[in-house]
Amino acid sequence: MFKQYDVIVVGAGHAGCEAAAAAANMGSSVLLITMNMGTIAQMSCNPAMGGVAKGQIVREIDALGGYSGIITDKSTIQFRMLNLSKGPAMWSPRAQTDRMRFAEEWRLALEQTPNVDFWQDMVSGLLVKNNTVVGVRTSIGVEIEAKAVVLTNGTFLNGLIHIGEKRFGGGRTGEKAATGLTEQLVELGFEAGRMKTGTPPRVDGRSLNYSVMEEQWGDENRGKFSYTDTPVTQDQRCCWITYTNTAVHETLKEGFEKSPMFTGRIKGLGPRYCPSIEDKINRFAERDRHQIFVEPEGWNTVEIYVNGFSTSLPEDVQYRALTQIPGFENAKMFRPGYAIEYDYFPPMQLNLTLETKLISNLFFAGQINGTTGYEEAGSQGLIAGINAHNKVHDKHELILKRSESYIGVLIDDLVTKGTEEPYRMFTSRAEHRLLLRQDNADIRLSPIGHELGLISDERLEKVNKKIKDSDDIVAFTRQKSISQSEVNGLLEELGTSPLAQGVKLHALVSRPQVTINDLRKADTQLDELLSNYDTETIEQAEIKIKYESYFEKEMDIVERMKKMEDRNIDPDFNYQTLVSLSKEAREKLIRIKPKTLGQASRISGVSPSDISVLMVHMSR
Amino acid sequence: MFKQYDVIVVGAGHAGCEAAAAAANMGSSVLLITMNMGTIAQMSCNPAMGGVAKGQIVREIDALGGYSGIITDKSTIQFRMLNLSKGPAMWSPRAQTDRMRFAEEWRLALEQTPNVDFWQDMVSGLLVKNNTVVGVRTSIGVEIEAKAVVLTNGTFLNGLIHIGEKRFGGGRTGEKAATGLTEQLVELGFEAGRMKTGTPPRVDGRSLNYSVMEEQWGDENRGKFSYTDTPVTQDQRCCWITYTNTAVHETLKEGFEKSPMFTGRIKGLGPRYCPSIEDKINRFAERDRHQIFVEPEGWNTVEIYVNGFSTSLPEDVQYRALTQIPGFENAKMFRPGYAIEYDYFPPMQLNLTLETKLISNLFFAGQINGTTGYEEAGSQGLIAGINAHNKVHDKHELILKRSESYIGVLIDDLVTKGTEEPYRMFTSRAEHRLLLRQDNADIRLSPIGHELGLISDERLEKVNKKIKDSDDIVAFTRQKSISQSEVNGLLEELGTSPLAQGVKLHALVSRPQVTINDLRKADTQLDELLSNYDTETIEQAEIKIKYESYFEKEMDIVERMKKMEDRNIDPDFNYQTLVSLSKEAREKLIRIKPKTLGQASRISGVSPSDISVLMVHMSR
Repeated sequence: MFKQYDVIVVGAGHAGCEAAAAAANMGSSVLLITMNMGTIAQMSCNPAMGGVAKGQIVREIDALGGYSGIITDKSTIQFRMLNLSKGPAMWSPRAQTDRMRFAEEWRLALEQTPNVDFWQDMVSGLLVKNNTVVGVRTSIGVEIEAKAVVLTNGTFLNGLIHIGEKRFGGGRTGEKAATGLTEQLVELGFEAGRMKTGTPPRVDGRSLNYSVMEEQWGDENRGKFSYTDTPVTQDQRCCWITYTNTAVHETLKEGFEKSPMFTGRIKGLGPRYCPSIEDKINRFAERDRHQIFVEPEGWNTVEIYVNGFSTSLPEDVQYRALTQIPGFENAKMFRPGYAIEYDYFPPMQLNLTLETKLISNLFFAGQINGTTGYEEAGSQGLIAGINAHNKVHDKHELILKRSESYIGVLIDDLVTKGTEEPYRMFTSRAEHRLLLRQDNADIRLSPIGHELGLISDERLEKVNKKIKDSDDIVAFTRQKSISQSEVNGLLEELGTSPLAQGVKLHALVSRPQVTINDLRKADTQLDELLSNYDTETIEQAEIKIKYESYFEKEMDIVERMKKMEDRNIDPDFNYQTLVSLSKEAREKLIRIKPKTLGQASRISGVSPSDISVLMVHMSR
Repeated sequence: MFKQYDVIVVGAGHAGCEAAAAAANMGSSVLLITMNMGTIAQMSCNPAMGGVAKGQIVREIDALGGYSGIITDKSTIQFRMLNLSKGPAMWSPRAQTDRMRFAEEWRLALEQTPNVDFWQDMVSGLLVKNNTVVGVRTSIGVEIEAKAVVLTNGTFLNGLIHIGEKRFGGGRTGEKAATGLTEQLVELGFEAGRMKTGTPPRVDGRSLNYSVMEEQWGDENRGKFSYTDTPVTQDQRCCWITYTNTAVHETLKEGFEKSPMFTGRIKGLGPRYCPSIEDKINRFAERDRHQIFVEPEGWNTVEIYVNGFSTSLPEDVQYRALTQIPGFENAKMFRPGYAIEYDYFPPMQLNLTLETKLISNLFFAGQINGTTGYEEAGSQGLIAGINAHNKVHDKHELILKRSESYIGVLIDDLVTKGTEEPYRMFTSRAEHRLLLRQDNADIRLSPIGHELGLISDERLEKVNKKIKDSDDIVAFTRQKSISQSEVNGLLEELGTSPLAQGVKLHALVSRPQVTINDLRKADTQLDELLSNYDTETIEQAEIKIKYESYFEKEMDIVERMKKMEDRNIDPDFNYQTLVSLSKEAREKLIRIKPKTLGQASRISGVSPSDISVLMVHMSR
């Protein structure tokens, strides 16, 4: 009934969709198995992609040839570049999306991907031979063979939904949980854990009073996620901001004794940086208000996502508290918020390729690895899909470096340090974040995507042209002078000190108050030159001029670390014999089996002196 | 947390959506409760609306102010008027629709209906006081009050899915079943039964070889369902026809011993006129092939609905048999077909308003009443919604007559005769089908819709204008003569005998070979007149001219029957004392309590002589 597939992907959320697309586009025959073909790429939580650090990840996925950026562009209802007042390393694209459009565009994109087949069913077990996965078994009893399997089960593995004191099984509200897989994996020797996440109530936009809220519009000349030429509309929908208050908090507290979080009914840890409203009130008792983002769920629907109000308190408490928020006095709920507990597998059980250490050709991606977030999931799916393809075609592993991508940071963190609570990306997790910007993800990663066969020659040429053109602009500003008389009027306008003598344009662009586009008015040659280039190229040149010296310093650090980073450690290295290692370091090194000195250096509990011991030993 | 609603509608399929819209548009405050807001108006089975008798029902829903016609027009990917070679009473509009679009348009339409609120939850019980329903209780434990409740649970009540020997609970594949309600209703005294329906496998359109199938295109100048000016595109998608063969049948037979239908695991009766492929092979053993309609699921998706191949045989048997169908040699399945058993409540427990006899203000609509089909469900929802509104606002009941609508036939059949197997509409079920045409549903029913407040003054005026204009055209053809020399050439062309002398245009239009538009070439006055009217008006005039005498005869019969039909029977009428009644008639009359002599006459087992006894008794 089924052929043997190269890769089976279990689950069709952000991780599963990216995994299926990547493996298929590289040439693998792929079967994507989902419990419901009507819910492919459902956004389970907020209808948004990107944000701080997460937006960078979506750009990286796009630069590698993944689909998330393209799908987001096709379904965006509002786009904002966050942190524009900070340096470019902090600029973070974020899009509100149309929930239905997003899911539909993903499904259509996968359907248009020639090597992807679909099967609607629940995977209840793996077929394993000689510690290698060889297929899956489903709830209706079919067995399907594959050379590799990628598990992306999200919150479905033994999913348990909590609202106040009520509990019921489910992978999302209204959908069944998936059973059987965890039990088998534990039998195979995997360690499983339990995590928790949550979602806020959804309300009827017609019942809100927006006049007492702050409007939040998208960017005037909106950007987008994909480096490809996805068409975007300038139409956008408004979001709103309002705030909780002490009355809201008091009402919520009345439900605390029935809270599944506080009474211990929920065992799993939730995402620290995406806490429920009851958590926020509890942990930040001194704050008398919290921000609530009022986000439409799509172009036409009246459904509203109450961002910032995730909760698993009893639904009547949710309701009473909601209606004390300014603008929500007459709010009608569509569905209450809830918490969900689900199984995950501590990710130190994985290689950096996202293949499990215990079972060959079995890959994990997304929440099953203890992460939270669509972007984190999508990027893991992409890497797992690529490596699954590479594995079954005897090709080299793809392991992205921490210095070249957030995706590299994410996976290295997971595999090396593990995670006890849902892992979310932050810019602070990347030691080289100056280099990992949203503006240069294409420059950083498209050559890799091209080598993998996920980025066309044409796309790569476009990237190379962007590099060359921006360099040309920089070179021009280095050689072209401008006189006081030509520019001092403009400088005064911009609130920066006038020149005493002529300087190169480069010196002026380096000033924080001056943009390269400002100078077009003062220098017709510059104006003429720039008119040949698109916005992204000009922006790239400007970033280079303004931050060049910082980037160079950062690159030096990377180079020095790289020497250590790239020193491979023999997988059979015998740490037991190295008596000079600390006990903790020895234990962790044996457990984690780092592939390089760099990875070893980032294991918590492995000190610089332990690394010295290793280096000395290895250079013998 | 919730206000008291006028009407709560449970379930958001075709029945629930129409019920909610109707009650809300009449002014009731409505709460629509669905287990999943993401699956509102899901087409569980084939992505199509209309067809023989069913298309007429959709036109009737539209004429009364329901939404099904409008939603269908907005999501149509192919439109055909079936039976155009027969008389106009048989003309039946049918549309293939885009499954995703259909659901989305319904949801958006409901969201735009001011009095409809939404709540995502499972209703697990009713609140009942003094034999009157006063609200519902849900699975998360909230109680919501309402003056009336409409149950439209579809296949979800204790839904049990069968594929070969496997069984699992579910309301549709991948979705949970609903529990609790049946048990409570039985405790309240209702009789519950079990029915079965089924659906075919879905396949990947990319894996089919269309070159060996017959193309089936939509109508060139396509019609539509709604009498409103819903815009329609002329773009359409192609469908295909192929056939099973003896090899397919032999393969399917191999699975018979594991068939849940043939081994007795399925207790409920399935729809006789929408049988599974195994049923067809079994019942029509002499036929060596069955037609298979290959229907796309939407504008862009590659998913294909294999119409005619409904089955609950083991999935490997389904697959092997499928791939023996010409064009399906390399077919890839997305999901197997399955059968589903669910609870229904024999509809003789209802009044003609669809209110239950046992519990006041409780209404049932759709599959819960033992019907099958989207159109049957939608129309019941509409009537239940209207009557729920009328009941809680002390207004007159709406009971449509058998002589004025298929909807009237449907409900009268259900309530009077009950049904042992899923009830589906046919033109043959209507004794006055000559009058119940798709072309005149607006003329028949819009005045009623207008009186209910569901049809605007403007819409009614448009209907009245259509009546007047078509009458004007008919009148013109009665008085305008045409000579032999003007028309004989044309008549020869059309293959009908030439005139010996001049006649009125009316006489020529009455000929089967001649259309009124043909005559425009021969008569400039007619041509000029018709240029003032739209297609529907001209068509209406032509139908009147061609079939007038039949209609008049039919109207006579209706009038005669009406005299009997409208004789009310006292609800407290004591049949026990009427010794001249047959035993069976007495029993059934006591059980069903018909409201009129007409209804009594259609009860199976009540003979004309029983009716005479009643009439004699009543005229005393």
